Amino acid sequence: MRIVSLAGGIGGARFLRGLRAAVPHAEITVIGNTGDDITLFGLRVCPDLDTVMYTLGGGINEEQGWGREGEHHLIKAELAAYGMEPQWFGLGDKDIATHIVRTQMLNAGYPLSAITEALCTRWEPGVRLIPMTDDRAETHVVVNDEQGRRAIHFQEWWVRLRASVPAEQIILVGADDAKPAPGVLEAIAEADVVILPPSNPVVSIGTILQIRGIREALEAKTVVGVSPIIGGAPVRGMADACLTAIGVQTSAQAVLELYGSRLIDGWLVAEQDGDVALDGVRVLARPLLMSDLDATTEIALAALELAR
Amino acid sequence: MRIVSLAGGIGGARFLRGLRAAVPHAEITVIGNTGDDITLFGLRVCPDLDTVMYTLGGGINEEQGWGREGEHHLIKAELAAYGMEPQWFGLGDKDIATHIVRTQMLNAGYPLSAITEALCTRWEPGVRLIPMTDDRAETHVVVNDEQGRRAIHFQEWWVRLRASVPAEQIILVGADDAKPAPGVLEAIAEADVVILPPSNPVVSIGTILQIRGIREALEAKTVVGVSPIIGGAPVRGMADACLTAIGVQTSAQAVLELYGSRLIDGWLVAEQDGDVALDGVRVLARPLLMSDLDATTEIALAALELAR
Repeated sequence: MRIVSLAGGIGGARFLRGLRAAVPHAEITVIGNTGDDITLFGLRVCPDLDTVMYTLGGGINEEQGWGREGEHHLIKAELAAYGMEPQWFGLGDKDIATHIVRTQMLNAGYPLSAITEALCTRWEPGVRLIPMTDDRAETHVVVNDEQGRRAIHFQEWWVRLRASVPAEQIILVGADDAKPAPGVLEAIAEADVVILPPSNPVVSIGTILQIRGIREALEAKTVVGVSPIIGGAPVRGMADACLTAIGVQTSAQAVLELYGSRLIDGWLVAEQDGDVALDGVRVLARPLLMSDLDATTEIALAALELAR
Repeated sequence: MRIVSLAGGIGGARFLRGLRAAVPHAEITVIGNTGDDITLFGLRVCPDLDTVMYTLGGGINEEQGWGREGEHHLIKAELAAYGMEPQWFGLGDKDIATHIVRTQMLNAGYPLSAITEALCTRWEPGVRLIPMTDDRAETHVVVNDEQGRRAIHFQEWWVRLRASVPAEQIILVGADDAKPAPGVLEAIAEADVVILPPSNPVVSIGTILQIRGIREALEAKTVVGVSPIIGGAPVRGMADACLTAIGVQTSAQAVLELYGSRLIDGWLVAEQDGDVALDGVRVLARPLLMSDLDATTEIALAALELAR
């Protein structure tokens, strides 16, 4: 079986661990969000790709959900001692090694997709991980606070401001020119089923869907989504702030409508959201808390059941 | 009093600590060797500048003589896990932060001299530290071993091969085009005395002297050198391997002759080398082991005495 999954960071990565366990012989291709990528201190950081790679490769900080296990933060302290900004992004020392490798390869002319593949030869995530695009497409957020109306990088809004300032707009800068990375459209074309994990529907899945040709390619396939909203609240993270920014309610029903029935064929919701319905979409209600690997594997199996 | 000192790494840095203690009110300008600089993993590393900065700024690993105190090596292990080469250069995590700052500023267009000044605002070394040049001039070594005759970076010869393969030639690549960094010639012109610490006479002091105009400027001044050779052996390091490469004996006499009487006015040697002599050079014999700060301060005072 060939499966394509889109993925953001923590939620997507954890779901993928369950999916891999559910169908160990399937060929799984993961299209990773790179809209959150940021250049810090001259180093190119790809938080979502790395979270998927570390989580599936056994290098993740399990409690935190992102970053490396056994991490140190000497470099962050040193950079602060030099007065370097920004100081609000928590780059760990081990993690920085990944960014050093990536940046050196980027500067040598390799595309991000080739670099990600090279990094994965170490981590052996058991899936093929492809960035949504090799081109630069970064999510920016328009905010309006005491400093005035301005666009800031998604990470500044998400990490520094913890999404506490309302987002007026969320814009993927560079989306018009970004092409899917090599292998993305091919993997979708060959997929038996496509699964949207409970990643952020706006700044993770929504971002990937903005890359030219990806949504259209997906609409031709059997696509099952796992609701990231349980009983009106995000499973984790601050997806509600993102949904509000684009005028969408924080509910399993509203996210399904946001994706739309042209994209979605099956929609897996939590038991308390069993009244969700949309013409042309098969809805299934199951426990959706990814409390451990077993529970997550069950969710993945339910998504695959829905696809059949 | 205005003092200019040239400096390599460990020996020069330790001498400078004694010099600063000997004349706390003097204005000391240090012209640092950058011939050993190397780009590793996309990061620009300036070992000698950093050794001077860390030593005088209180951040040095005292036992080792280079690198940071309380250092960790997570990144080195991570880069090795990614299969990155070279693995023979011991970059510490804290040290890497310095290289990240430097590389970011270089990529932003700042010259190395301005970057060094910026880094020193943190370390407050108590001297003005200027790189010999803002231009790229890197020491390469011609070796001839089982892999054939070839030129390798100085660090590969020094660190990886530990100077165990004889050097046929030592070449400062880029020397013809390198100009002294801003402030170098001015500091020399205004100096009351110039001191050559017991740094490597070939790849540290010798390198600085190859930068256009520096030797000529120094010849017009009172220059006192501290012999890096005691009783036929280098005080520390592998200066003998470098001297052999350029056909010079490892002796206080031979190094004095290498520098020459046009450059040197006073030559401070160890007690066992009291028979050293050269026309036009005043020679003084004193204990030269920099065993602690007090001993080093005495050496610096003797050098200044010789200058009077």
